Amino acid sequence: MRRIAILGSTGSIGRSTLSVAESYPDRFQIVALATGSNLKVAFEQARRWRPRVLSIAAEPDADVLRARLKQAGLGEIEVVHGAAGTVKVATHSEADFVVSAIVGVAGLEATYEAVKAGKTVGVANKECLVAAGELITAEARRQGKPLLPIDSEHNAVHQCLRGGRLEEVERIWLTASGGPFLNTPRSEFDSITVEQALNHPTWKMGKRITIDSATLMNKGFEVIEACRLFHLPPAKVEVLVHPQSTIHSMVEFVDGSILAQFSVTDMRLPILYALTYPERIQSDMRFPVGNLRHLDFCPPDVNKFPCLRIAYEAAEAGGAKTVALNAADEVAVAAFLEGTIGFADIPRIIEDTVSASNRGQLESIREVLEADTEARRYAQEFVLGVNKKTGHLRPISVVL
Amino acid sequence: MRRIAILGSTGSIGRSTLSVAESYPDRFQIVALATGSNLKVAFEQARRWRPRVLSIAAEPDADVLRARLKQAGLGEIEVVHGAAGTVKVATHSEADFVVSAIVGVAGLEATYEAVKAGKTVGVANKECLVAAGELITAEARRQGKPLLPIDSEHNAVHQCLRGGRLEEVERIWLTASGGPFLNTPRSEFDSITVEQALNHPTWKMGKRITIDSATLMNKGFEVIEACRLFHLPPAKVEVLVHPQSTIHSMVEFVDGSILAQFSVTDMRLPILYALTYPERIQSDMRFPVGNLRHLDFCPPDVNKFPCLRIAYEAAEAGGAKTVALNAADEVAVAAFLEGTIGFADIPRIIEDTVSASNRGQLESIREVLEADTEARRYAQEFVLGVNKKTGHLRPISVVL
Repeated sequence: MRRIAILGSTGSIGRSTLSVAESYPDRFQIVALATGSNLKVAFEQARRWRPRVLSIAAEPDADVLRARLKQAGLGEIEVVHGAAGTVKVATHSEADFVVSAIVGVAGLEATYEAVKAGKTVGVANKECLVAAGELITAEARRQGKPLLPIDSEHNAVHQCLRGGRLEEVERIWLTASGGPFLNTPRSEFDSITVEQALNHPTWKMGKRITIDSATLMNKGFEVIEACRLFHLPPAKVEVLVHPQSTIHSMVEFVDGSILAQFSVTDMRLPILYALTYPERIQSDMRFPVGNLRHLDFCPPDVNKFPCLRIAYEAAEAGGAKTVALNAADEVAVAAFLEGTIGFADIPRIIEDTVSASNRGQLESIREVLEADTEARRYAQEFVLGVNKKTGHLRPISVVL
Repeated sequence: MRRIAILGSTGSIGRSTLSVAESYPDRFQIVALATGSNLKVAFEQARRWRPRVLSIAAEPDADVLRARLKQAGLGEIEVVHGAAGTVKVATHSEADFVVSAIVGVAGLEATYEAVKAGKTVGVANKECLVAAGELITAEARRQGKPLLPIDSEHNAVHQCLRGGRLEEVERIWLTASGGPFLNTPRSEFDSITVEQALNHPTWKMGKRITIDSATLMNKGFEVIEACRLFHLPPAKVEVLVHPQSTIHSMVEFVDGSILAQFSVTDMRLPILYALTYPERIQSDMRFPVGNLRHLDFCPPDVNKFPCLRIAYEAAEAGGAKTVALNAADEVAVAAFLEGTIGFADIPRIIEDTVSASNRGQLESIREVLEADTEARRYAQEFVLGVNKKTGHLRPISVVL
């Protein structure tokens, strides 16, 4: 019986994790949940899963939830709140597996504490590896516990790596769908609309990650995540465009053998893999291999998608540069989604913010968060400048 | 230092094994060689590799070789001959790894003795698994030593299987190039010429295996080999046509993940893999992953290629049926190559011979060889009958 705590249980990965737990009631027990601001779903999850402890972001919400649970005869569920509440969930003594799925830097501290408490952590939160990857992976190594990636690409790499030892890896190939603008000429990039950018060809995802897929910044983040997770230099992590997104990633070994992983595009699969690792258990998520017909590939165009180049540069530098990369991207994407800047402004804002970042290596999650705040402020000023120059009609209202 | 004995050192796999050994002089030592009738190459290999013992098929050749080696100042190399000589090579006390690469049933006894002597065996000889697979794999299990497949498909499966446990395998997918008649209508199969059948699209191989690729019998043999090697029922081994032969095979796990292996089409790669397993070492055999463009797949047409269906049926029955399958195929292919029968007669001869075989399970290599002889005789009589009926011009001269 695996006893699970979920950080971000009302989000997409959190819900998929609960759906997996639902399918295997004899294998998984939910012991702690950390939620955000969705009081209704938090209550339903508490009633359905009866965790020992449930955390919600705001204190007033915690009070309401406590009262409602008591009314429902579930007064034994401890309700906590805020950052301290999330850490309580992440380090709960009865949990042996923590799913880190809070979006953004809000999940950093709790994930770090979970690793420090010796939990096996399934990582779905990008920032844990992009912004705080050096700290978190170093701590996991100290604890001798695996960090199990819960996203299709790194999960695929994790599976392929079982075919050899880490020292036997020549390079990793992350596949990329190429996004909706794979075949759009660069000259048209300035006039790309929000609607066009949100129309991802293969995956249905949140807005930010969809835009990140359109700029290929998402793949850039994944390069950094791969470097952190698998202790590889950026030069050993390559990107290959594969529009069908069938093969999720590949590992090339020193002897010249390449292993590739594929499966249906269903997040429950990497979640199940992480939750049961090193075992595999029966699922109904069958890829119809016999129906396989064509797989296409091409190299990524870094001139058309400068975000990928910028990400490699930040990966090489490490430390605060990757924090700035993530922070600036979040600000720039939000500004694009609000109509404040154009699509082609996104890499400009990011590149400028990353090059301005000069804090070097970061020694604690606090320092990571400080670097993050600083980079966001810088990026927002840049957004303001771009907005003035281009005279976009919409006012600026990027929320920190 | 791995100390290697090669059964069939002058053949294609044998030479490739020596080429691998040549590239890594610090890792591999050649301690024993078993050769066939190529006296010249046997002498050259003895001079180059200075094995402790060298076996050659015929006694007079052994005498000549002994004299020439003495003349060359290499009198310390022991020269033996015949079946007993091959067994001596296979069980040499200084060898820890035996490459089984003698073509045909001639390699059976020596390979079985190598396994029984506790050697790790790299299997390139198809008959070891198709005809005597039950005996040889059972003995390897008793010895607790791996049987390492040296052919691209099973080697690929072996690599992919590292991603999980054998009990976690849902099924195996062997890829098939489809051969030169993938797109030829069935109605034209009766008029296929030897020249057309020898024109394989992706691999350059010996004549029999090239014809076996054209009839898809080669894939049928591989299904049986996979069942034996990986202890799977035929229903768990599927075939997928993949004309580029880039992906060498795949393993589908119970959780829905599929691992695929690919590499350059160079036999030195599976040989290197087997010789260094469980390690992987650096090679120059690089597949240019970045140049990957298109991979195509389609299901096999068992109506057009009945050999595949016949092989599945023999695999289900096991025992003498798979011996008969191999023996009848060898006779039928030889008859086709000699112009004695037509291309479409090949499956007819095989199916009839397999269905006539009724010896059931076989308890020893001797019984396997008896069943083999019996099946060959039966198949030859069938060839004679076909030849009479169709009035092929060429006389029958199938050699046992």
